Amino acid sequence: MFFRHEYKFFHTGLSIFASMHKQITSNQNPKIKFLNQLKEKSRIRRKENCFFVEGRRETSLSIAGGYQIKQIYYCSSIISYEEVLVILGNAVNTIDLFEITIEIYQKLSHRSTTEGIIAIIQSKETLLKNLNLKTKNPLILVAESPEKPGNIGAILRTADAAKADAVLIANPKTDIYNPNIIRSSVGCVFTNNIATGSTSDIISFLTSKGINIYGAALQSSENYYTQDYTKPTAIVVGTEDKGLTDEWLNNTTKNIKIPMSGVIDSMNVSVAAGILIFEAKRQRDFVV
Amino acid sequence: MFFRHEYKFFHTGLSIFASMHKQITSNQNPKIKFLNQLKEKSRIRRKENCFFVEGRRETSLSIAGGYQIKQIYYCSSIISYEEVLVILGNAVNTIDLFEITIEIYQKLSHRSTTEGIIAIIQSKETLLKNLNLKTKNPLILVAESPEKPGNIGAILRTADAAKADAVLIANPKTDIYNPNIIRSSVGCVFTNNIATGSTSDIISFLTSKGINIYGAALQSSENYYTQDYTKPTAIVVGTEDKGLTDEWLNNTTKNIKIPMSGVIDSMNVSVAAGILIFEAKRQRDFVV
Repeated sequence: MFFRHEYKFFHTGLSIFASMHKQITSNQNPKIKFLNQLKEKSRIRRKENCFFVEGRRETSLSIAGGYQIKQIYYCSSIISYEEVLVILGNAVNTIDLFEITIEIYQKLSHRSTTEGIIAIIQSKETLLKNLNLKTKNPLILVAESPEKPGNIGAILRTADAAKADAVLIANPKTDIYNPNIIRSSVGCVFTNNIATGSTSDIISFLTSKGINIYGAALQSSENYYTQDYTKPTAIVVGTEDKGLTDEWLNNTTKNIKIPMSGVIDSMNVSVAAGILIFEAKRQRDFVV
Repeated sequence: MFFRHEYKFFHTGLSIFASMHKQITSNQNPKIKFLNQLKEKSRIRRKENCFFVEGRRETSLSIAGGYQIKQIYYCSSIISYEEVLVILGNAVNTIDLFEITIEIYQKLSHRSTTEGIIAIIQSKETLLKNLNLKTKNPLILVAESPEKPGNIGAILRTADAAKADAVLIANPKTDIYNPNIIRSSVGCVFTNNIATGSTSDIISFLTSKGINIYGAALQSSENYYTQDYTKPTAIVVGTEDKGLTDEWLNNTTKNIKIPMSGVIDSMNVSVAAGILIFEAKRQRDFVV
């Protein structure tokens, strides 16, 4: 069941009349069931062309990244209606707002006591052909078939910190709107310039633009610090388990390795990507 | 219930008579219940002074790291008795061996079809006073109160790759024998030179040895690439949420930052540690 509320916050200066505002008090409400499905199932996200976001900063960054929020669910025991309006800014005019009880919120959310806000957001296409590089000397991070949301999130944070010109995901295995990626990226999945495509298409794209390709590899490779990343550069890392496929390794400008002196022969993929990208940043004098 | 088996593998050249070898077929067996407790509960690991390890490489590395294996449980549908003997080598003489069914193994294990071997291993003390630095110009990684097993495992892999002289964990919050740390470190938790202690004790230890301390910080700090890490160096990173405490920040040689140009103001802690440690490696010409 839900019913209309009337709020009066003229002092916020934001229009509240343009948005619907209802209260939901039952876990059995179809909207709540739908939220749960969006959160859990990549298939539903693809079919419905939208996804589930939790958190204040994440919601703000989705707006900053040009995403369209369709609905907001907030819990007034944790976040006030005014705070929600501040987060949404002018975007509020096209958003349906729902107030939910703490019991519903805690069942839906990962951080059950701190954020109080959940959004349904429209997915964006991440087609390679739509990718817009704004510089003639780009620094691009490519990840082939990364699987673990925590690693993908960490890679996106690194790309954000480095202000990489694009993050390309080749042969993606994990939906980038997976809630664990959104969370572990601290929301910068929305603000990075992301495109996905097949390995072949991404190699063609990079080659056609004259971008040097450096593939992280263990064998037949040069030490990473001996190479020059001051020209247009793509740094490419492979999967957690098996590294890059031969298709990549055979089509790079150079394959590069991080020398490893320990007892195991691999590093965490997001750490390796960080070391390589920041060596490129160092060579480029950290100029953005 | 369990009963004795007799195996004859004289051709392996390894003594099988020195070890007990029994079969366990019930999940209700007290040994299986104990394994589950060791896996799940830090409290039990501390009380019993031992921990749970799954995997071939992990078991091998525990031996390489000088750990004492107390018991082995293996599943002959996945790993042969001979393969187990090869992993254990001479250590087999003091180990109790148990064969378990695939049903029991799959309930105990994380990677339910690939490894086939579980060990109970005696914990080591990780006291700072026992730490032995083998060089006069050490490179040390310090992490204050890291919490997430995946981050701790990634940090340990980085320290292994860099052959860091020690990994110090200040005010530890997570038991280093947590199965998720063992797994995400790919077993190099056993081969790194690890010590734990309070922040005060670690600062005193580093200072008394004349080791320069570089604390990763956002404010009041120098760009990391402007500092000299060719002298005795400790690089210190803080918690996932809040970074380093003031106690660290007020007692460093210098605080250092990785310049971040994006929309969020932080990186994954294990990525940041990797960038800083490998800048030190680069300055040291990757000499081990």
